[in-house]
Amino acid sequence: MKIYRFRDGDRVRVGVGESERIWRYTGDDAFNLGTIDDARPLPLAEARLLAPVTPGKIVAVGRNYAEHAKELGNEAPSEPIIFLKPPSALLAPGGTIIRPEVSQRVDFEGELAVVISQRAKNIRRASWRNFVLGFTCANDVTARDIQRKDVQFTRGKSFDTFLPLGPCIETELDPSALSLRTRVNGETKQDGNTRDMVFPVDFIIEFVTAVMTLEPGDVILTGTPAGVGPLVAGDVVEVEIEGIGALRNDVA
Amino acid sequence: MKIYRFRDGDRVRVGVGESERIWRYTGDDAFNLGTIDDARPLPLAEARLLAPVTPGKIVAVGRNYAEHAKELGNEAPSEPIIFLKPPSALLAPGGTIIRPEVSQRVDFEGELAVVISQRAKNIRRASWRNFVLGFTCANDVTARDIQRKDVQFTRGKSFDTFLPLGPCIETELDPSALSLRTRVNGETKQDGNTRDMVFPVDFIIEFVTAVMTLEPGDVILTGTPAGVGPLVAGDVVEVEIEGIGALRNDVA
Repeated sequence: MKIYRFRDGDRVRVGVGESERIWRYTGDDAFNLGTIDDARPLPLAEARLLAPVTPGKIVAVGRNYAEHAKELGNEAPSEPIIFLKPPSALLAPGGTIIRPEVSQRVDFEGELAVVISQRAKNIRRASWRNFVLGFTCANDVTARDIQRKDVQFTRGKSFDTFLPLGPCIETELDPSALSLRTRVNGETKQDGNTRDMVFPVDFIIEFVTAVMTLEPGDVILTGTPAGVGPLVAGDVVEVEIEGIGALRNDVA
Repeated sequence: MKIYRFRDGDRVRVGVGESERIWRYTGDDAFNLGTIDDARPLPLAEARLLAPVTPGKIVAVGRNYAEHAKELGNEAPSEPIIFLKPPSALLAPGGTIIRPEVSQRVDFEGELAVVISQRAKNIRRASWRNFVLGFTCANDVTARDIQRKDVQFTRGKSFDTFLPLGPCIETELDPSALSLRTRVNGETKQDGNTRDMVFPVDFIIEFVTAVMTLEPGDVILTGTPAGVGPLVAGDVVEVEIEGIGALRNDVA
């Protein structure tokens, strides 16, 4: 099932996608769908999509694809390297990524995002699926020059608009071998597969929940494959993951 | 004014402190105090205090006292180094800091915390006070061995219970020269003053809001002075800041 969140007139709604249409539901978030509300589905192309969840926390894993670690001059880590992105960085599908003046180099990073379904602490990897509502696409936008200067990843990854998320949550997906592509102005820049993660989704969930309690709607970003590169004003960037769809944003 | 948040029977309330008593108010958070609700004040010593706010974001500044940077072998930074702590790390005054098995070295770090009052983006330092509700004490508990190993600060500072906050929000305080002491089992370990911050509060607010939008209740931790050291099971750690009070927690 594909869960969308969108503006419909003055209200925020959720709906369930089927082909290129969204069936409106009575609820207003992915955890309270309610029931079908309207006999007329909304064409997906006309929907004013929002980020499909509003996470309280966004936990990200750095250098989780060996080829990407290498392209930035790093080794693949022996344990997941985690960092946090602030909820204020969230951006809707179709929204505009704003490059801050303080950075000369803003990169895209296409990633598979995991949406947590219920409170999760000290989860064993074998039971990971009980704690996951589904998956979506994310762009872990990064001011690369600031990330390098600060050493700490936080500032370079925390600017407003630096976390496009969507277009929907796919609740029935095996995340172990999904094609992940990032295109800029239609040209493929990242062409990876989640099977190349250094630490797979179940391992990450065990690792993160050994540190902190996750809550419903929290999001884990699972790292980016090789091929990251810069965005400039006027670009259109798309992160597409097999079975989910494409997350498309422009750049100012 | 000192704003407390606490459990009172089955409900969460706020109140205003005076001497060693809390006057109960009708509201339930620091942004909606309401009015005085009961003629009988609660003795402060009997109050089951909670963290005085529930922040959506916690932004922290690393190495913001030169002597502390030096004691860990670092130079004072030329710009603030920021990182995030997750809301799941929050701990109430009187709560127990849990040392995770994965760490052999868990340190206290007493800090002045700033509580944001309204949405804040691109704030100039001269107007900082309009965006601050007040100040409280924080303990930026850190698994030092994990922080060193990961390089990224996040994991070592994100374990559940690693952010004691309180005991109250003092809304009328000049943060520029406050004594800040941390005691372990009654012995003074940190004896600093906020006048020794590398970057003062107004500078930090300008810097952080140039990156991300802050929301009401968000918290900024302003760094720790020299004297950090380990906590072991059975310790009692207190962070006391002039004009606010003491934040006391035990350790398991």
